[in-house]
Parts: sequence; C-alpha cells; structure tokens
Amino acid sequence: MTEKTRNIEERSIWDDAQQMLRKAERDGVETAWDRLEHQTPHCKFGESGVCCRICTMGPCRISKKAPLGVCGAGADVIVARNFGRFLAGGAAGHSDHGRDCIEAFHAVAHGETQDYHIKDEKKMLRIADELGIATEGRELLDVAKDLADEFFESFGSRREEVGFIGRVPEKQRENWKKLGIMPRGVDREITEMMHRTHMGCDNDAANTLLQGARMSLGDGWAGSMIATEISDILFGTPSPRKAQVNLGVLKNDQVNILVHGHNPIVSEKILEAVNEKELIELAKEKGATGINLAGLCCTGNELMMRQGIPMAGNHLMTELAIITGAVELIVVDYQCIMPSLVQVGNCYHTKMITTADKARFTGAEHVKFAMDNGMEQARKVVRMAIERYTMRNPDRVEIPCEPVDMMTGFSTEALLDALGGSLTPLIDAIKAGKIRGAVGIVGCNNPKYKHDYCNVNLTRELIKKDILVIVTGCVTTAAGKAGLLVPDAIEQAGPGLKEICGALGIPPVIHMGSCVDNARILQLAALLANEIGVAISDLPLAASSPEWYSEKAATIGTYVVASGIYTHLGHPPNITGSPIITNLALGGLDDLVGACFCIEPDPFKAAELIDERIKMKRKGLGLEE
Amino acid sequence: MTEKTRNIEERSIWDDAQQMLRKAERDGVETAWDRLEHQTPHCKFGESGVCCRICTMGPCRISKKAPLGVCGAGADVIVARNFGRFLAGGAAGHSDHGRDCIEAFHAVAHGETQDYHIKDEKKMLRIADELGIATEGRELLDVAKDLADEFFESFGSRREEVGFIGRVPEKQRENWKKLGIMPRGVDREITEMMHRTHMGCDNDAANTLLQGARMSLGDGWAGSMIATEISDILFGTPSPRKAQVNLGVLKNDQVNILVHGHNPIVSEKILEAVNEKELIELAKEKGATGINLAGLCCTGNELMMRQGIPMAGNHLMTELAIITGAVELIVVDYQCIMPSLVQVGNCYHTKMITTADKARFTGAEHVKFAMDNGMEQARKVVRMAIERYTMRNPDRVEIPCEPVDMMTGFSTEALLDALGGSLTPLIDAIKAGKIRGAVGIVGCNNPKYKHDYCNVNLTRELIKKDILVIVTGCVTTAAGKAGLLVPDAIEQAGPGLKEICGALGIPPVIHMGSCVDNARILQLAALLANEIGVAISDLPLAASSPEWYSEKAATIGTYVVASGIYTHLGHPPNITGSPIITNLALGGLDDLVGACFCIEPDPFKAAELIDERIKMKRKGLGLEE
Repeated sequence: MTEKTRNIEERSIWDDAQQMLRKAERDGVETAWDRLEHQTPHCKFGESGVCCRICTMGPCRISKKAPLGVCGAGADVIVARNFGRFLAGGAAGHSDHGRDCIEAFHAVAHGETQDYHIKDEKKMLRIADELGIATEGRELLDVAKDLADEFFESFGSRREEVGFIGRVPEKQRENWKKLGIMPRGVDREITEMMHRTHMGCDNDAANTLLQGARMSLGDGWAGSMIATEISDILFGTPSPRKAQVNLGVLKNDQVNILVHGHNPIVSEKILEAVNEKELIELAKEKGATGINLAGLCCTGNELMMRQGIPMAGNHLMTELAIITGAVELIVVDYQCIMPSLVQVGNCYHTKMITTADKARFTGAEHVKFAMDNGMEQARKVVRMAIERYTMRNPDRVEIPCEPVDMMTGFSTEALLDALGGSLTPLIDAIKAGKIRGAVGIVGCNNPKYKHDYCNVNLTRELIKKDILVIVTGCVTTAAGKAGLLVPDAIEQAGPGLKEICGALGIPPVIHMGSCVDNARILQLAALLANEIGVAISDLPLAASSPEWYSEKAATIGTYVVASGIYTHLGHPPNITGSPIITNLALGGLDDLVGACFCIEPDPFKAAELIDERIKMKRKGLGLEE
Repeated sequence: MTEKTRNIEERSIWDDAQQMLRKAERDGVETAWDRLEHQTPHCKFGESGVCCRICTMGPCRISKKAPLGVCGAGADVIVARNFGRFLAGGAAGHSDHGRDCIEAFHAVAHGETQDYHIKDEKKMLRIADELGIATEGRELLDVAKDLADEFFESFGSRREEVGFIGRVPEKQRENWKKLGIMPRGVDREITEMMHRTHMGCDNDAANTLLQGARMSLGDGWAGSMIATEISDILFGTPSPRKAQVNLGVLKNDQVNILVHGHNPIVSEKILEAVNEKELIELAKEKGATGINLAGLCCTGNELMMRQGIPMAGNHLMTELAIITGAVELIVVDYQCIMPSLVQVGNCYHTKMITTADKARFTGAEHVKFAMDNGMEQARKVVRMAIERYTMRNPDRVEIPCEPVDMMTGFSTEALLDALGGSLTPLIDAIKAGKIRGAVGIVGCNNPKYKHDYCNVNLTRELIKKDILVIVTGCVTTAAGKAGLLVPDAIEQAGPGLKEICGALGIPPVIHMGSCVDNARILQLAALLANEIGVAISDLPLAASSPEWYSEKAATIGTYVVASGIYTHLGHPPNITGSPIITNLALGGLDDLVGACFCIEPDPFKAAELIDERIKMKRKGLGLEE
C-alpha cells in the first residue's frame, strides 16, 4: 500500500468514492481533498472567528498583543458579527430559493406559464385554509393568487410574525416575543442582520446572536417552509417509493445527465424532457440505449422524494461522479455546487449547464430557465447531453459499483398516512419507550472529516438505541448507501424500534427530503408537541449535522435550537474565539429557548450525548427509560 | 519634539485633534490611532480580498502555492463574494435606516404617535403626486398612509423597479434593464446578494459585481432616498442657516450632550428636550448655565442641516470629543459608533446611552426609543446628562479651540431656491465654463490616512479649478473646519466659481447633509441631466470619498458609479487580489454604465484626475474648456 493509497482510504468510507479517487489520481484530476491539503493548515484567526474585514480601517486580528480592533471591537463582538453574517448567508440561500418558488407559484396562479401547474390541489387548499384564506366555492387559481400574496408577505416588512408562525406551540411563541426573536419577515431579518453587523452598530455579542436566532427562525418557519410547501403544491407531495443510490446508478450504455443544486423548478422539467419519446429516439440514434437522469445533493433529493429518481451522490461525490467519465452533462440551479465542477468536467467530455442568472459559473454554458420557457430549455439541455454522448471515450469510463436500494418519499403527510392517519401510534410508541425519541440527522460532507463516517455511524448507533432517525440532504445518500433506508434495516435497530417500524413496514431511518425540507421536521415536531400539549423543547428529540460545511447548515442548526431541539455538530462554526458566543451556543441558549448545541467529532460519543439528552427529556415528561 | 509628539502631528491636520491626542496620552486613554498601530501590519490576504471564510471547508487563502480554495473558487470568485457582502453591509445599513423612517412615517399616518408629526406637508404632497398617489381633496393623513405603503413596496419582492426610479434619466433606465441591474426591491437585492455569495452559487466574478451594482442602486435610489425624503417630511426640508463646527462648540459651563449615529428620529427629540424650560432650570440648579447639544457624524449632520445645531466633529473626532472631559453624555442611534466610546467614556464621567434594540453596546445604558415614547425617553436621557454634570472634574476639562462658522441647509429644494427657482442659472454657468463642473466629496475618516488632509486639500484644489464642491457626511466637518463652508470662501475659488457663488451669496462648497443624503446629490444630478436631455454620465460631474472606511461608503461609491458618475477613492476596497474585479472597477464599468472608479491617495493628483474627467465630459457635451 503506497502512502497515497492509504490516504485515499482515509478520505471516504465508500468503495465507489475510493475507486474514483484512485481514478482521479491516474487521470491527473484534482479534487476537494487535494485542495484541502494545499489549504492546510488553516488560518487560526479565521478558524476562531477573530479576524475582521468589515471596514477598511482593518483588516484586524485579535490576539494578546492586539486585543481590540481599530474601532475598539473585541473578540466577542468580532465573532458575533462574523457569525451573524455567516448565518445570514445560510438564511438568504434557503429563503431566496423560497422566493423563487413563490414567483413560480404566482406565475401559475396568474396564468403566466404553461410549463408549471398546481399538482396537489388538496394540499394547496389545506394551506390556504390554514393561513386564513377563503377557499369555499372559489376558483382554484383565485385561491392560489391570494396564497401567493400571503407567502410574499412573509418576506416583507409589514408583519409582526411570519405566516406559518401559528404552527409553533403557543408557549414558545410567547417566549420568542419576550426574547425579541419572533421573526417578522425573512428579508427584513437578513437585512437587519447585515445592518447590525456594520461597523459601529450592534456591539453586544449576545444581542447579535439573538438576532441570528430570529433570522434563522424566519428561514425555518417561513423561507424554507414556504419552499417546501410550494414545491409540494407544484410537483406533488411526496409519498413512499423505491429509489437507488451511489455511483452505480450511472449507466454505461445510456446518456447520463446529472441534476445538481436545490430547487426542483429546473430539474422537474429536465425529468419531463428525458422521458420524451423524440429525445429518447435521438439518444438511440446517437448509439445510446436511452437517457438516464440521476441526482446530486438536494436537487437530487427533491427529484428522488417525488419521482424516485436515483441519487448518484452527496456533496463530496459531485466531483467523483464526473470522474467516472460517464457523465455527458451536469445541469445545475444553485447552492453547494463546487466551482471546480467546470474544470473537472473539462478533464472529460462533461458539459456543465447553468440555469439561474444568480448562479453563473465562469466556463459553463448558460441556458436561462424562466417561467415561460422551462420545457423548451429543458429539451435544449437534453439535446446537448445527447450530442455529448458521441464524445464519450469508453476507455476512460469506470462506473465503480452496483446501486443500493432505498426507500424515500416520507413527507409529513406520508408519514402520517403510514401511521394510519394520526400521530397516536407514534406518541404511544414514544410513551411506551419502544421509540425512545427521534433525531434528525442532516447536512453535508466536509473533506476535513472522513466522508460519511460520522453520518453513517451516528445513524447506526442511534437506531440501536431505539431512537428513530430522520434524514434529509446529504445524509440521505450516506444512510442510503449504508443500507439503512430500507425496511430490512430494522435488523440493525433496537428491539422497540424494530417492532414498531416492522409493524408499519417502514425503515428505522426515514428520508424526509432536501435541506429546505428540514422544515418538514420542524412541522412534525410542532405537530407532536401540540398533540401532547407541551413545547417542542419538552420532547425527546434531537438533531445533528455531523459533517456540515455550509452556512445553510449553521442556519438550520440555529433555527432548530431556537425551536427547542438540542443539536449536535461534528465541529464548531468559527466562533471559538469568543467566550460569550461559545458559552451561549453550548449552554446559555438552553435557558433562553430550551435547547443548545453540542460539539463532538466522534459519532459514538455523540450518540451517547444525544442519548443522555433524550433520557433527560423523557424523564421531564414523566416517561420511563 | 518627542517621537510621540511628532507622531501626533502626523495623525491629524487639526489643532483640536492634536491637542486632544496629547491629552489622551497624558490621561492614558487609547484611541483608534493607537489600536491601528497594534493592528499593523495588516493581513495581506485580507487586504487583497483573497481570504475566504464562507464555509467550514476553509478558511482558505489564495496564494501561488494554493491558487484555489477547497471548493475550487479562485481569487476572482473569492474577491467577488467578499466584496459583494461588503457592499451588502453598506446597503443594509442605509436601507434599514430608511425602513425605520418608513415605520415612523407609517405610525404618524396611522395616528400611533403623538411625538412625531408631518412638518413639511407640501413636500409630502409633492412626493405622493410624483409616485402616483392621489392627493386632490384628500385628508393629509390618508395620503400619508398610501405613501407609507408605497415606500414599503420599494423594500419588497413585488416590484420590477423601486418607486423613485422615474427620477433616473430614461436612457439609463433602459441600460440598467439591459444589464440586469435594475433594482427591484431593497431587501430582495440584499438577500439575493447573500444568496449568490453562499458557497456554490454565483461563481462568475463579473456577474456578482453586477448584482453589487443592482443592490447598491437599490440603496441609492430607494433605501437612502426614502430615508432622506421622509426625514424632510417629518422634520422639515433643510434651508440655508448658520452653524458652527469643531470641538470648540462644547461649553465649559454647560451640560454638554453629544448625539451620534445616523437617524434623526432620536436626536430630534433630544433637541426638543434640551430646549424645555424645566430641564434648563434643572441644569441651572446643578450649577450649569444651560444645556448644550452638539452633533457627531451623520446624526450631527441631520440636526445641523435642519436645526443649525453645532457639529463637534467627524468620525475620528468622536473619541477625542469625550477626551475633552467636558461631555456629560453621549446618546447614539446606530452605525459608525466606535465600540471604544464606552471605554473612553469610562475614563471620564461620560455616560453612553444606546437607543435602538438593533445597536446595543456592552457597558452602555439602554434607553429604548419607540414611536410612542420618544419625548418621554428624550427627557429621561437629558435628566441623566444633567445628573452627570455634578460628576464633571474641572481639572480634567480641556476644550481646545474656538468654533468655526459655517453655512448649512442646502437641500435640493434650498439650492433651487438659491438659484431663483430653476436650474437655468446653474446650467448657464456650466455652459459658460464659469462653473466647469461639480464634485460630491463624501464619506469618512480612516486613521490609516492623515485625518482630513485629503478631504480638505481635494476640496480646496477643486474649487480653485472652478469646480463646485458638494459635501455630505464626515467631509462636512472637514470642509467646515477649513473655513470652506462660508460665502467668504469664494476668495479661495477660481474666478468663475467666485463670480457665480458671490452673486448668489452661497459658499463654493455646499453642505447637502448626511451620508444617506447622498441621495440628494443623485437627485440633483438627475434633475440636471433631465433638464439638459442627456444621461447623468454625460455631465461634467464626479464624486470622491478620499478617506473612506465603511461598507456604506463603498456602497455609495458603487451606486454613484452605476448612476454614471466617475468616482475617486483615496484607497481601494479589499479587491486588489482579483484582476477581473479590479479591472472592472477601474475601467470596465465605464463601458457598461458610463463611469468607473479611480484610486489615488494624493489629493493634488486626485484633483488632476477629476479635472481631466470633467474636461472630457465638457468636451463630450460640446462645451469649451
């Protein structure tokens, strides 16, 4: 075993990843792991959050020699400002995606598009009803117009509370008002955070962090939640179905197209196009046996949840998917798309297509998707992919493994259906200790940590302890590849969880969607709390993002904690230079919102910490161990 | 002369500043200049913009050894993302201030406050009319309600253009649409910028910079412009009046209160309170002869423009004002308030009061101002100041000089009045070459550059060349202290400017307000362009921010350039690590929007560069040198 090979085995737990990393080495292609080596060691000022570039009197760096920046800000204020903006980046990502969904829905309601339609009328009417919009005896599109307007209001300056706030248990709403963290409007909270963190504005670290909580709650209970609800309305509320996962979903003899990004608006049209007879015929003319569509990251989750489209991989697999040499084209919308994909594609025959004006990539071809041209553009993109098939070099193709089966499609609605229409069986199972609690494991990969090691092992440890696990985002792929997203996985679960999931015919690890769909988990937690008559923070719940990397993950963690759910992170954000912020995150928030963060890189120790918390919460509810 | 003393003379051109720096040394008080020494040398990665902390795969730093971040972003993308967020901080500051003004105006319109009123009904009706709101035969407050709603819309997601866009010359509006930089809604553009700069979103540097232009235009033509217009409606449109400037405005025998920040909503109430007989009597009971209110920075500019309240100093004078030992209390709203002021105040008897929940300072006392308690809270603050007077130690008081006279109050309306009601005399003077052009000199101080050296010398050089200068923000104080804001200053101007200003009885350097009031300059430029029938970029205009430090200054610079006005900066923002962004800023933008930036630390050379540009523009209009 050479030095380099050993290193590859430390990079990822997966065979498909390791094989592609070896191929990358042979093909002379650089990956995120290589770039990480070049960027190591990282700047200690940056890692601890005490480097400030917010004005040109600096940049300033806090040290013993220089404990204050030029303006007079110390470590606490500098960390708070940096972290506030970090959270703002995450809230903006999810919520601007939510706004794009509202614009699509608005276009549908006003008859401005032929390419998008209301697919789940029932859900639309139910939500309109929930938000106080008259539905009785009205035209569907008239209700839709009002609902679109209502959604826009949650982004504005005119409300004291975002629209879906009624879903939050009342006790918590009252607490948020008292703390001044009730989210008013998504964009407003983001702008206010950017304002507060300007030089000479908010210079009290705790006060800035509270605004971070308010802004993140706006993302969770409005921006992301609206994105999820509208996506269900336009493309269908997910229901359980089978799918497959890993690089083996690519096909040797077909035109392979990958969709990557987050918003289903582009990828749903690509899916329609690849199923069109004329385009399949064209692919056959070019020598392929058909067209194969697979997903990456959250756009992949969206298509998988609703349509059962296979998933090629998660964050750290995106470069490796191209390195198979079997991908004709990758079409992206936005977020988490490594800029390197253009260069990796150039090492093969892979074309990269961007679709959103807000996410251009130097070197990629731009095919702008708008409400009135979605289908037309999708066909254009698929034709480009077919053309590329003729350029594929079979000698450079290596598809490393066979796909693994998984189950997907557990929207909140589908989960309720699986439970027979009410939460009672779940609550009974929790009360009886058969399901001791539930944990959402979400988020990304990060090349600093062995790929999917923590995602998979934490999931396994928790189900052993009779804790139901819910996954979204990039953890989906990890759990799927590990064989944990099939009903047979109950064999790896503790006896109680095995009994309940076995009886319901569901896996012990439930796939609830993409990263904006963490709003589904919030909603489920709120439904449980309201049903039992307690706060979310009273429930035996936890969350974890073991291998996170993105601002969105930090924002999700913050809205989850602020919503009362204890949250584990595999590593801290860049806050450790501030005692005030660090202490608040790891403890102080517990007194304010009923939950806090914990940091633990080891998945086995993390499982113990989460287990302790669930014990404590069960005890608080008067339930037996 | 000791080493330290020589150093002090290099820190500022002003006697009052140098005296206070010497006193600071004696009193053992640290200032921004001292902290700058501790923070020097600055991090080269940060200064050139190639350090990225946008996700936890990093932090990454671009160098020859490591030309790409972990995600694959190179120097151009990293600089673009960082600079995009820098501009977002600035746009958010001004525009969230604008939102606060709308909320105040909304409260007045809906009768929710007794403390604020519509002072300039005529202006309100004129603006309502301009924005398409019916005014004829309607109750004033009903018009106000509609106008408040209209203003809120410019912050939302529902418009294709912000409300005041009709002020922009049509040719430029068409160009902005073509370039995709027409601002839609203030908050939306800020959120979209934060979204684009998330990892894996916008990875084309030029595309990100264009969004920077769109967002900044939203600040200039909406956020800031609305702040200015509402402030005029609520507190009166400024008209020419006398005022005084420098630390000599503090009074040895009076209770001295300083207001600092940006928004007049708090300071206007403080001003009312200090004029209340009962409180003046209370001050006299405590041994003072009265209560003296003076301003700092932009809150100071707001009070000076409308009420003639004296100005104690600009950005680098804020610590020094406290070091006089004569300040009982400093009351702040938000932005550009050094966190150090709390500590400097603690070295004397100076109490610091914060008033906005979004700008708390650890160690300061918080007296929250709301729409329904402004007067009550203002009285409370003034009483606190009076109490503090008894704690003043006369042995530690040193007020360093006599105040200098100046003229203020040149709103666009007032300038038109001074011109006899129309722009014709100004246009005639420009055509005749008596006024060769006009330059707005705006912005801050920065301890890296000798305090006010460039602000004052650039102003002097330009008026010598028959170029009319308009000042706002911290440059006001510099020009005022230099004696340039009085009619007699025409003696320092070239013959043409001397003739015109002499005839009109105005100074050759015109004070137009605070930094949000740069919107007044935009409006004036647009009025001129529309009157002549050209684009703003065709006019012999320029702008400069010689000693800027803040994100807001960068945003102002960007909206001014995007509006077609060539802009000089004394030093570059942290963009020099990207050839694409640097070349766009210094040249490429000229082809797109008809203006670009230039960087020149030397005020004499900067004056030449600006003069060349004005010559070129005059030639373009067919005017003689």
